[in-house]
Amino acid sequence: MKPLESVFNARSVAVVGASTNPEKTGHIILKNIIDGGFAGSIYPVNPNAGEVLGLPAHASLGGIEGPVDVAVIVVPSKFVPDVMEEAGKKGVGGVVVISGGFGETGNDQLERRIVDIARQHGIRIIGPNCQGFNYTPNRLCASWPLVTKSGPIAVISQSGTVGAAIETWAQDAEIGISGFVALGNKVDVNETDLIDLFKEDPNTRVISLYIEGVTDGRHFMESVRSARKKKPIVVLKPGTTPKGAQAVHSHTRSIAGRDEIFEAVCRQLRIVRARTITELFDFSLALGFLGKPKGNRLLIVTSSGGSGIIATDAAAEGGMDVIDLSARLAAELKEALPPQCVVANPLDLTGDATAERYRVAGQLVAREQSIDSILLIFGDPIPGACEVVTELKGKTDKQIIVAYLGGGRVEEQEKLKLHRSGMPVFPTPERAVAALKVLL
Amino acid sequence: MKPLESVFNARSVAVVGASTNPEKTGHIILKNIIDGGFAGSIYPVNPNAGEVLGLPAHASLGGIEGPVDVAVIVVPSKFVPDVMEEAGKKGVGGVVVISGGFGETGNDQLERRIVDIARQHGIRIIGPNCQGFNYTPNRLCASWPLVTKSGPIAVISQSGTVGAAIETWAQDAEIGISGFVALGNKVDVNETDLIDLFKEDPNTRVISLYIEGVTDGRHFMESVRSARKKKPIVVLKPGTTPKGAQAVHSHTRSIAGRDEIFEAVCRQLRIVRARTITELFDFSLALGFLGKPKGNRLLIVTSSGGSGIIATDAAAEGGMDVIDLSARLAAELKEALPPQCVVANPLDLTGDATAERYRVAGQLVAREQSIDSILLIFGDPIPGACEVVTELKGKTDKQIIVAYLGGGRVEEQEKLKLHRSGMPVFPTPERAVAALKVLL
Repeated sequence: MKPLESVFNARSVAVVGASTNPEKTGHIILKNIIDGGFAGSIYPVNPNAGEVLGLPAHASLGGIEGPVDVAVIVVPSKFVPDVMEEAGKKGVGGVVVISGGFGETGNDQLERRIVDIARQHGIRIIGPNCQGFNYTPNRLCASWPLVTKSGPIAVISQSGTVGAAIETWAQDAEIGISGFVALGNKVDVNETDLIDLFKEDPNTRVISLYIEGVTDGRHFMESVRSARKKKPIVVLKPGTTPKGAQAVHSHTRSIAGRDEIFEAVCRQLRIVRARTITELFDFSLALGFLGKPKGNRLLIVTSSGGSGIIATDAAAEGGMDVIDLSARLAAELKEALPPQCVVANPLDLTGDATAERYRVAGQLVAREQSIDSILLIFGDPIPGACEVVTELKGKTDKQIIVAYLGGGRVEEQEKLKLHRSGMPVFPTPERAVAALKVLL
Repeated sequence: MKPLESVFNARSVAVVGASTNPEKTGHIILKNIIDGGFAGSIYPVNPNAGEVLGLPAHASLGGIEGPVDVAVIVVPSKFVPDVMEEAGKKGVGGVVVISGGFGETGNDQLERRIVDIARQHGIRIIGPNCQGFNYTPNRLCASWPLVTKSGPIAVISQSGTVGAAIETWAQDAEIGISGFVALGNKVDVNETDLIDLFKEDPNTRVISLYIEGVTDGRHFMESVRSARKKKPIVVLKPGTTPKGAQAVHSHTRSIAGRDEIFEAVCRQLRIVRARTITELFDFSLALGFLGKPKGNRLLIVTSSGGSGIIATDAAAEGGMDVIDLSARLAAELKEALPPQCVVANPLDLTGDATAERYRVAGQLVAREQSIDSILLIFGDPIPGACEVVTELKGKTDKQIIVAYLGGGRVEEQEKLKLHRSGMPVFPTPERAVAALKVLL
């Protein structure tokens, strides 16, 4: 294995600075690795403890008997060079330096030192000053909070919190992630290395980036160009205002750069740009699960008239074509549906609609030539919504997208079922339409 | 009591069309009234059942012995006039007609008939073709899904689903609502009547409207002008695009009208306009719980550098002043905080920040003259966040607003504690900043 891959697919992990104090990061990370179900060897390193969390503690990395693929380092910054020297001697493939107190606080000399040691020994460094990493296919959550649910999204983030937010939302929704890497000061491993890695990762279907600056523009563009042939990329890059750019510099000493230039790069490389953390999540869901519609002609099917109107406004404002129904389709729908239904676009199945009514409507629109996408809005507690969507998906070449709201506990259950079946559910029609637009 | 108030403060309620079939609306509503804990008399009316949900069924409204303040009508539309005649004889104050099949399906004659009967007997009508109403202070959920949590938001909605979405989000967040009324075809009770009602309701602090058209522009403006002296109003009104306006007409036969005119009315009457369902909720939370800052000068305090930058961009784009710290405050903060903290705006307490660090920073900024609002971003699992916010709130005249993300289970617990203490928590910095802006 190459050193970076040996981090993600590690079969043995050491936590240097593992603590018996439940409030310390060195305790939390060890606990998450254990509780996450990591199947390899786990070695707490702490010269002052007999054991940590039930595992025998080692005085140093060198004192561990078996091999160590990755060392997570949580000791104060001044001790990190010594730990890395030991890691080098031990043949550790990669280290994840959680500790802060390097370049971000002006301690450039210390930062250069750990880079030199890493180069000398062929060790890869994630961080320093970062929130670790998580790779669910290997059940290795060397980060916090504990996230174990596997899914198609790889999150690469220069902000631990933004990454953790996406991770936890994905877990709560039973969507899951493939991996999460906090870049920190990215003295070695940067966004480009990780795009190269997740591009080849069979568990990743979409790469979701939060970056404040790009380390090496030319390499970034090359990596993205190559990765885009295989999977979609979404990026949130703040610092778009002068005050924001100033804050970027204070945070990670990145240079935000002129936003027009980054915007042009995104357009050229077909990177989808998110403007908010919510969009980063929504767009990742859409791109991770759904395909490209053939065109921008949309049919909206709803049980909620109001939600249908809101979707219509959002689609029309976004340049989508909320088509008029063909005379033939309208006639067929009128024949098949109860008289209170509004046969138009939005197709309003009205408030007493059941899953069965969606099924009837779905069968008639499935093969309609004049439609590229179907937005299904479930606006009530409608049991059986998941089955209808799954059935329709099997019968049509149109892109289906789902919104569900106002449905209480039934909504929650159906949403999770839909997520497990690989169909993302958006909590409002506007968010569904915005997500659909990025697929075009 | 006036007829309309007798609906909300009813001491007795009949469900006409109460059903033993759990899938029927006439079952669900009766069940929600019972399960919601309504303390008054509950009368199922169903000539073909001995009892419904354990309550003795009555053959007709007239057959009920005691008084009936409100009758919820769920029978097919053609039977509604007879039920209303009976309600008139019985002295019922108001009816809520859930049933569809009136004006919205072209049955104008039937609609006029129920209006005539209501006028003749002095009965108020909510609906027809609506999702009922819910008034939590009276524990009367004559609607679906079941929502019982009491809170400051009154939701008046021409879409049952949009209203139910706000209700359920408010309940899940332990924020709660005061009332919810689905307007339906609003043949009698319309948005103006309900604004007048909720304006006087001591349980309501903010009025949240979803409307597709205004029934009577002059009355609407008068009511809003008067209500605005007492409480804020937020409105979501779609139909802003030609296709959307067309869908409005299909849904409720409302005339969306020219959006510039409605926009001008909102500006003149200081109605806050929401552009999405999410904004309708967020703005209602902000206006229901928070006060008006003295100006637009903002300090951002965060444990997440990235979230701080995102908040800075959002605030700067929205015309807020992300002020530079005064030399004195900067010196005090540098003295009090650990060296890794970035003493600037955003004030970055960094990833290892504890609640105690927020407390220390909060004490120093609480009396700073150059600040009007403080955005606290908790970007990690930080226990004790609620206590810090509550303490700071007691010490400062600045408006505090809170975002919490990336905190897993700790976040969920702290969020609910904050909500119970009357402080809304927004799930991203952007949403917090957008909500803060509407307070200005």
